Amino acid sequence: MHQTITVELGERSYEVRIGPGILAELGPFVASMDDARRSVVISDRTVAGLYGAEAVESLREAGIETSLLPFPAGEENKNLATCGELFDAIFALDPPVDRRTVVVALGGGVTGDVAGFVAAAALRGLRWVQCPTTLLADVDASVGGKTGVDHPTGKNLIGAFHQPSGVLIDVDLLRSLPDEQLRNGLAECVKHGIIRDVDLLDFIEDHARQILARDPGIMGELIARNVAIKAAVVSADETESGQREHLNFGHTVGHAIEACVGYNRISHGAAVSEGMVAACNMAVARGLIEREAADRVRDLLARLGLPIRHEGLDGDEIWRIMQHDKKARGGQVRMILPVVLGEVATFEDITPACVHGALAALREG
Amino acid sequence: MHQTITVELGERSYEVRIGPGILAELGPFVASMDDARRSVVISDRTVAGLYGAEAVESLREAGIETSLLPFPAGEENKNLATCGELFDAIFALDPPVDRRTVVVALGGGVTGDVAGFVAAAALRGLRWVQCPTTLLADVDASVGGKTGVDHPTGKNLIGAFHQPSGVLIDVDLLRSLPDEQLRNGLAECVKHGIIRDVDLLDFIEDHARQILARDPGIMGELIARNVAIKAAVVSADETESGQREHLNFGHTVGHAIEACVGYNRISHGAAVSEGMVAACNMAVARGLIEREAADRVRDLLARLGLPIRHEGLDGDEIWRIMQHDKKARGGQVRMILPVVLGEVATFEDITPACVHGALAALREG
Repeated sequence: MHQTITVELGERSYEVRIGPGILAELGPFVASMDDARRSVVISDRTVAGLYGAEAVESLREAGIETSLLPFPAGEENKNLATCGELFDAIFALDPPVDRRTVVVALGGGVTGDVAGFVAAAALRGLRWVQCPTTLLADVDASVGGKTGVDHPTGKNLIGAFHQPSGVLIDVDLLRSLPDEQLRNGLAECVKHGIIRDVDLLDFIEDHARQILARDPGIMGELIARNVAIKAAVVSADETESGQREHLNFGHTVGHAIEACVGYNRISHGAAVSEGMVAACNMAVARGLIEREAADRVRDLLARLGLPIRHEGLDGDEIWRIMQHDKKARGGQVRMILPVVLGEVATFEDITPACVHGALAALREG
Repeated sequence: MHQTITVELGERSYEVRIGPGILAELGPFVASMDDARRSVVISDRTVAGLYGAEAVESLREAGIETSLLPFPAGEENKNLATCGELFDAIFALDPPVDRRTVVVALGGGVTGDVAGFVAAAALRGLRWVQCPTTLLADVDASVGGKTGVDHPTGKNLIGAFHQPSGVLIDVDLLRSLPDEQLRNGLAECVKHGIIRDVDLLDFIEDHARQILARDPGIMGELIARNVAIKAAVVSADETESGQREHLNFGHTVGHAIEACVGYNRISHGAAVSEGMVAACNMAVARGLIEREAADRVRDLLARLGLPIRHEGLDGDEIWRIMQHDKKARGGQVRMILPVVLGEVATFEDITPACVHGALAALREG
């Protein structure tokens, strides 16, 4: 039942293990790490309440001294102040943490981002293990080593590339996941299909019902396929100078929609879904893909419960935000567009008119 | 007059340029970096007042848009809050910073540590250039990529390894350096001699007068020799898992003395000087080196104006602090001791009695 995918990054390579009941392997995994002496489990209060005891028990049974450090849940706490509080908690431990301490990130994307950055910066770099608990974290944040926190002026502006020592994805944990968070992950799965693997789109179309019902076997397969795609992209481009940029498909407009509408008023998955629809519209308008291909993406997103329309978007504001995206270069907006389903390219000649046209189509549905 | 030393770190290799008037090369250097579009000069208010205008002018003349971001001087401001304020300033710039932005650290060790960490974390890693302005920063912080800030529970607990793109050491800037800060650097120079190069001890002994008078030619030679030693150590061990630990010679006891006495009441150089005397005493007591070798070190330190005695040290407190050093492993104190002048080894069997003995000798002089 278990699948293992290796993220190939030379001496920073690590394994992602996927399957039911994997969280129980956390203790043995940390104990198997070279010279690991204690662990610090960082988790938001919600997830700490659900799975914190199980994680701590697994570690302690494996002989690893463990402290659970909860922090307040929510993207609004993904900031430098939360990191400061976690540093205070970590450095108050007695006996003191040292370089043999392993940080465990138990939770969704925010937890992985925060705990990973704390691990990156504490003593200039502690090893860390990711135990993602949401589908989005399973298929996205679990691969690539991107960690960090938000700044009032933008998301993920402060952080580090810090690869984990291993990732344990327990598909059983998806049972407690709210529907909206399931959809957040599914948006990324569709994205992976569009940028690299049209067969994955077939798989999602063929198993949409089981996916929405969280069938453990199908979810394991879905996650493994997505991890494999992301691992291949990241292996080829660890620090995001080249093809890793393709993972931003749907995110340039998506991030701008989130910033425009307000992060608390639209889910990340919904924004990315709309961003992908907009990008596909733009690709059709440029003659890159057929209308049928864009419709196929739209239909699949809708079937997964993701939004494909958004009335009343302020195009001027969206454009302004896109120019300030940290991936823009000198204010020049770059976008990833499909050239066929399963393949994308980067375009640097994006004009306000392109964006207005794509948003108009998004408003009209 | 200029010397260039390459720090060999594979794709992270960089050059250290040393000589009079080098600060004027800052602009051309940044302009020569691949795709560099703007720079942010981080400097404490004191150094910003002395050399900020010269740095900014050099950059602007080279066509690099530049903002000078000063922060309050002093080790007490080397903390996460200062980083937060610098992030606020950086992300408030318009047009916004992007990955082509280059951070310039203009100042002493605190500035390099803070600016380097801000560069490491901003947008998950911006390139940075170091322009050290103190002898200590010239011979120590300029090589190795160690960046970071203090936490109330200890120094340098939060940070990153982030190699600069280049280091420009202008020996003319040493003219404005207070004597105490000159001595801080000289303590590290003596350390480098003891751990790797007895010829460097000869050089310092032979030129002590010119060094204390800051003769530019002799200072350039002194700095180049020290940078070369540190570069060799760091190249062999970038992330401090092996021989880089040798650079901690004199620092285990030295840091404990600083923490015990109070960071504001003893300079870093004085503490390291005393730590080296204590370590040499310990080496004599263990039969590693002759008394004459320890006396030679003591005499040289005294000639450079560095302390070799410290009455009233609390041995129990020093021992307790040493156990909490971040380089201690599971509370086991490790120390670097000379086995002959020019060579050191790591010892893991340090007992409270060893430390009490060495401190007693330090008290008696």
